[in-house]
Amino acid sequence: MTPEDLVELEAIKRLKYAYFRNLDLKRWDEILELFTPDATCAYSAGAYSYEGRDAIVEFFRKGMGSETFHSSHKAHHPEIALTGPTTATGVWALEDRVVDTQWGIVIQGAAFYDDDYVKVDGDWRIARTAYKRVYETMEPLGPNVTLTASYWATGGRSSLPAPE
Amino acid sequence: MTPEDLVELEAIKRLKYAYFRNLDLKRWDEILELFTPDATCAYSAGAYSYEGRDAIVEFFRKGMGSETFHSSHKAHHPEIALTGPTTATGVWALEDRVVDTQWGIVIQGAAFYDDDYVKVDGDWRIARTAYKRVYETMEPLGPNVTLTASYWATGGRSSLPAPE
Amino acid sequence: MTPEDLVELEAIKRLKYAYFRNLDLKRWDEILELFTPDATCAYSAGAYSYEGRDAIVEFFRKGMGSETFHSSHKAHHPEIALTGPTTATGVWALEDRVVDTQWGIVIQGAAFYDDDYVKVDGDWRIARTAYKRVYETMEPLGPNVTLTASYWATGGRSSLPAPE
Repeated sequence: MTPEDLVELEAIKRLKYAYFRNLDLKRWDEILELFTPDATCAYSAGAYSYEGRDAIVEFFRKGMGSETFHSSHKAHHPEIALTGPTTATGVWALEDRVVDTQWGIVIQGAAFYDDDYVKVDGDWRIARTAYKRVYETMEPLGPNVTLTASYWATGGRSSLPAPE
Repeated sequence: MTPEDLVELEAIKRLKYAYFRNLDLKRWDEILELFTPDATCAYSAGAYSYEGRDAIVEFFRKGMGSETFHSSHKAHHPEIALTGPTTATGVWALEDRVVDTQWGIVIQGAAFYDDDYVKVDGDWRIARTAYKRVYETMEPLGPNVTLTASYWATGGRSSLPAPE
Repeated sequence: MTPEDLVELEAIKRLKYAYFRNLDLKRWDEILELFTPDATCAYSAGAYSYEGRDAIVEFFRKGMGSETFHSSHKAHHPEIALTGPTTATGVWALEDRVVDTQWGIVIQGAAFYDDDYVKVDGDWRIARTAYKRVYETMEPLGPNVTLTASYWATGGRSSLPAPE
């Protein structure tokens, strides 16, 4: 590996970071551009598999579009391999948590991603993305849980008082 | 981006890592040095806004100073831009969790940071830091939850037995 | 720090990433190779201390070997120092969560690692690893919590339906 390779790795990491930022902020037009047009996904060991970026983003919109669906997807431990001048693979560890105040549920879990990337006109794009869960749990949102901030309901501002 | 730029990015990442390490370990004198004297903060979409590093650190001391306040703040997905030889901006994804055993509460959530950094005498410092929450919840610490380790109460040692 | 130093840092980060990937996926033969033969550990402020990589991995097997023990260990905020051509130290922030469906418990917490690494025949290895907890809690797995995916029980596939 060379310092120049690290520049490519940084660009690929930012692709993934922008993906999760746009996912958790529900920016569907922006996330679409991060995929190649014919990208494929096989999330959750194939439970959610789609072909083409339009189908992938439609899956996001339907499943995560509601402003009562609060998600935090965080990717860790990138093991990225440059396999050619315009191709790369990536393994990442995911941890995610969803608080849906409409349905009153919390979903949390961990997974490992196995991705393919391609460089198109100088920009890295997701060509294939897949993950398998280590675990996932679902539980009711407890009756004593208070939502004290929401990007959508409160503009991202907490109702908890500052210390005096 | 060049390999030399990556050296600057690494230095800025370490500034942020030192910030969170000193925050969660309550090292107030050390965290003060990571800010410029006239730094500003606007945490939680401005709910907690202060001017000057002394006021920022006083906010930390008051809100997080108790040794029964256990916090884990983790920053992910750095999207850092060098905007000049001594200026930079940074977007980060936060996930944080607080377990306060005195008040019997758990606070957890996610947010996106939007920071400004400046390089002073060769060292990067935080000039402005702000975040907006994706979500934040507060709930009572359940009666069946046991604190099995604490940096302060047990010296960081768990009471859970080793496997036999 | 130079761009060439960053190549070494990247190699050390990948050592740690491979360690956690093999830990959470219970790949004991693979994790063994990441340690020097005489490596030592002092986890949880010394509560779990072992000498030699065989003893360390035996500790993992006994404590985490069951396929009902689902763990997610995530390392953040690497502050790595190259202390010589073949030696380095590392500080990392850990966040971990365990869901054990056999015993019906959830353990979660945070810690700071303090590691020593050595380069042997061109590959970085863990020579010493230790952490102190910021906090750790244990609680019963609630009766309303459903395990909707498991790497072992479901092949990593979720039972939650896709949105329609």
